[in-house]
Amino acid sequence: MDRAADPGFPLYHRVAGELERAIVAGSLRTGDRLPSVRLLCQQHGVSASTVTLAYRWLENRALVEARPKSGYFVARRASPLPEPQLDARMLKPGFVTPDDITREFLLGSDDALAAPSFCRMPSRELLPEAKLRALTAKLNRLHPEYATRYYITGSAALRHEVARRSVNAGVQLRPENIILTHGGTEAVFLALRTAAKPGDTIAIESPSYWMLLEIIRSLGMKSIEIPTHPRDGISLDALDFATRERGAITACVVIPNFQNPLGSLMPVESKRRLVALAAERGFTLIETDIYGETHFGDERPPVLKSFDETDDVILCSAFTKTVAPGYRVGWMAPGRRFKEAQSLKFHTSVTGVVLQQEVIAEFMRDGGYDHHMRKLRAAIRTQAAQMIDAVTRYFPPGCKLSRPQGGYMLWIELPRHVDSRKVFELARHEHIGLAPGATFSCSRRFDHFIRLHYGEPWSARLDANLKRLGEIVAELAAQG
Amino acid sequence: MDRAADPGFPLYHRVAGELERAIVAGSLRTGDRLPSVRLLCQQHGVSASTVTLAYRWLENRALVEARPKSGYFVARRASPLPEPQLDARMLKPGFVTPDDITREFLLGSDDALAAPSFCRMPSRELLPEAKLRALTAKLNRLHPEYATRYYITGSAALRHEVARRSVNAGVQLRPENIILTHGGTEAVFLALRTAAKPGDTIAIESPSYWMLLEIIRSLGMKSIEIPTHPRDGISLDALDFATRERGAITACVVIPNFQNPLGSLMPVESKRRLVALAAERGFTLIETDIYGETHFGDERPPVLKSFDETDDVILCSAFTKTVAPGYRVGWMAPGRRFKEAQSLKFHTSVTGVVLQQEVIAEFMRDGGYDHHMRKLRAAIRTQAAQMIDAVTRYFPPGCKLSRPQGGYMLWIELPRHVDSRKVFELARHEHIGLAPGATFSCSRRFDHFIRLHYGEPWSARLDANLKRLGEIVAELAAQG
Repeated sequence: MDRAADPGFPLYHRVAGELERAIVAGSLRTGDRLPSVRLLCQQHGVSASTVTLAYRWLENRALVEARPKSGYFVARRASPLPEPQLDARMLKPGFVTPDDITREFLLGSDDALAAPSFCRMPSRELLPEAKLRALTAKLNRLHPEYATRYYITGSAALRHEVARRSVNAGVQLRPENIILTHGGTEAVFLALRTAAKPGDTIAIESPSYWMLLEIIRSLGMKSIEIPTHPRDGISLDALDFATRERGAITACVVIPNFQNPLGSLMPVESKRRLVALAAERGFTLIETDIYGETHFGDERPPVLKSFDETDDVILCSAFTKTVAPGYRVGWMAPGRRFKEAQSLKFHTSVTGVVLQQEVIAEFMRDGGYDHHMRKLRAAIRTQAAQMIDAVTRYFPPGCKLSRPQGGYMLWIELPRHVDSRKVFELARHEHIGLAPGATFSCSRRFDHFIRLHYGEPWSARLDANLKRLGEIVAELAAQG
Repeated sequence: MDRAADPGFPLYHRVAGELERAIVAGSLRTGDRLPSVRLLCQQHGVSASTVTLAYRWLENRALVEARPKSGYFVARRASPLPEPQLDARMLKPGFVTPDDITREFLLGSDDALAAPSFCRMPSRELLPEAKLRALTAKLNRLHPEYATRYYITGSAALRHEVARRSVNAGVQLRPENIILTHGGTEAVFLALRTAAKPGDTIAIESPSYWMLLEIIRSLGMKSIEIPTHPRDGISLDALDFATRERGAITACVVIPNFQNPLGSLMPVESKRRLVALAAERGFTLIETDIYGETHFGDERPPVLKSFDETDDVILCSAFTKTVAPGYRVGWMAPGRRFKEAQSLKFHTSVTGVVLQQEVIAEFMRDGGYDHHMRKLRAAIRTQAAQMIDAVTRYFPPGCKLSRPQGGYMLWIELPRHVDSRKVFELARHEHIGLAPGATFSCSRRFDHFIRLHYGEPWSARLDANLKRLGEIVAELAAQG
């Protein structure tokens, strides 16, 4: 949602918001002179005091500075923090026991006050709640039988819409080759069971999201962490090395587009090479693409499956991170293993809740979805820039910062001796939500990393939280 | 739904329906004289021709006979078919591969025309569709955030309602010890994963429903079929024998109340003994109670968990068979293994769809649920009697018939040489739905059994289907 256009915000916000976006986006650069108060009054049809309030707000946020008798200028900003680099060390495969902090972190995710939130999804005001409510009301009125009937393969309309749009991601799925699931988690869970069995070794990105580590462990499978570059994704050299012995790796789970927690985006050529490597070495690629449509750039990046000539890649996705977290609607395209995957789906949870599936199908069909996604992308792009800006200003020297091109996550490397568990603990008491690096790996190598989440529109509270977080990090860094 | 009270049925149906119920229930017995036409006209305030129509309808159904100059009498009915008996032969445990017919049978369940239906749930008109629609509309209006928020442990209100009512089944569950699941299937799936690991042996009732056989197989577990009595449930002697060697059996899955497909109800003393046996021998009981509230008698039978002093029984249930098949709402009370079960739930599908959970909670809270269940029980009790009556009249000699005390299923033993696969195939072409015995076991011992389903209000079409089915069975019996 565009905060500046929201009638719930004071008038000066509209003026300030426009200037802020121009600065964050780089259209106005450090030292540029800003429009005069008089000009802005004319442009926006507002009073001089409103414009003055807007400038004061921007000054408080250190985005502009007033120079006596000259007007307002874009302030000198802290130089951008460098990016974290690839840590190429390899570990042996093992039965994973993620840090105990994971459970505590999960339970902490119930803290509704925490901002930025723990959950890797956009905040409520960025989601099409009113539209979903209207569609639910309509379909509930028209189809009361969704409650009392049984739809063994779920909503045909939704499978059709998913197939229709798959061309945007470079593939041509067919509705009858898609299985609807309970969110992306069940999709990945079923994909792993389809492709591998207990005792098998699964290659995963390192760092990777804790839920994946837990799913693999719960299935009695081993995991091996493959070093993953914060910008370009999984290291193909490392994967090449790990899969040299045929059969050593049964499957590899990858988030090629806007990885969690890195936000990395695999270049097209790497995707092509990865699919070729999997075919050559005989392991199955399980691809999670739940963030694929949250690209900041103009182009929707292709999925691995678009390079998949043998139909061996299992593509998983969901609407939980872009449309309706509460609906728990996900899907998978298991390729040539469709029958096994469908069978496992029946024997895990049979089928899904058709009302919500139909609501999403209609949302996609009537064009509301496209409009929503454009707005969502614009919002998170701005929020990412705002959070990067705040971290740059508030965090102590020695920190490094990812440069996400989509998704909702910022990955921050703290000075090496700062224990991010400690940061997590201290921040949590002040309702500042963050994910400590320890939850993303079984090694200790990310113990001085944290993941932040910019799914929420920027606010004074968020700004204050980031500032406080910077202080916490600085204090711990000084102790080291 | 009470057909006789439904204004959509002709007037004579009301009169006939009342007499029919009295006959089926045994209040009127063979040879009893029925009220005169004149008396019925007075009682019901209808014309003589209406009463005559009612008697003619009952005559056509062979329930009454007219004796010249004496009036109407309850007709001599075919003698009731005997009950099937316990087949006490034991098999070795094995990795189950149910008959291929299972998949075909599953796909056949999509046939909307088939009656009696394949699915073991009540038909749409017996479910509270209008009420659910109204509650969905209301909660969707009040809580649009159910779409856009994330409820990590699902609806607290529903867990509260389930706990509150658990006293009716003889236990005192607490809301915080209940996990909401995607239907009963996910509950049993998680219970098995909580209690056992791949390679372990699971004791199951024989016959048992095909989905359970498939779940166990999909988890890489072995199953051993324990002979189960069509009236009293699992054979404790057989289970005692099978569990003599400690550790041979890790868990035992039981439906103590109105088993699928037998409709058997374990006597209270057997339940107590079963729980004691499990504690003594160190295997975990997984109890499915989805039919527990469909009792024909006055008393809701207790669950195994009510005798469970060590909190070791895992109780699974769902609302899919009594309230809303399409909602996919189930639950489990994993007892002392709560933490493991909750963890597995997170790593399988995270959480459920809260809107439907809240709808069911409100339906239970405002009293609609109790009223609905009373009506549903009365309806299926009548339908069971009607179907038993029809099978008795239409099926050839040599058939045997279960005597369900609840649930939706009739279990029929055909003459030994009749292949129920063949019955299934022939019936299917005429849209007559039934489940062949082969899908309920890995042995061939139920190949001459079928399961019928009386979840649908009696109708001329159902009567005709049962008559035709009796002919099919008779033809195959004659060929043998």
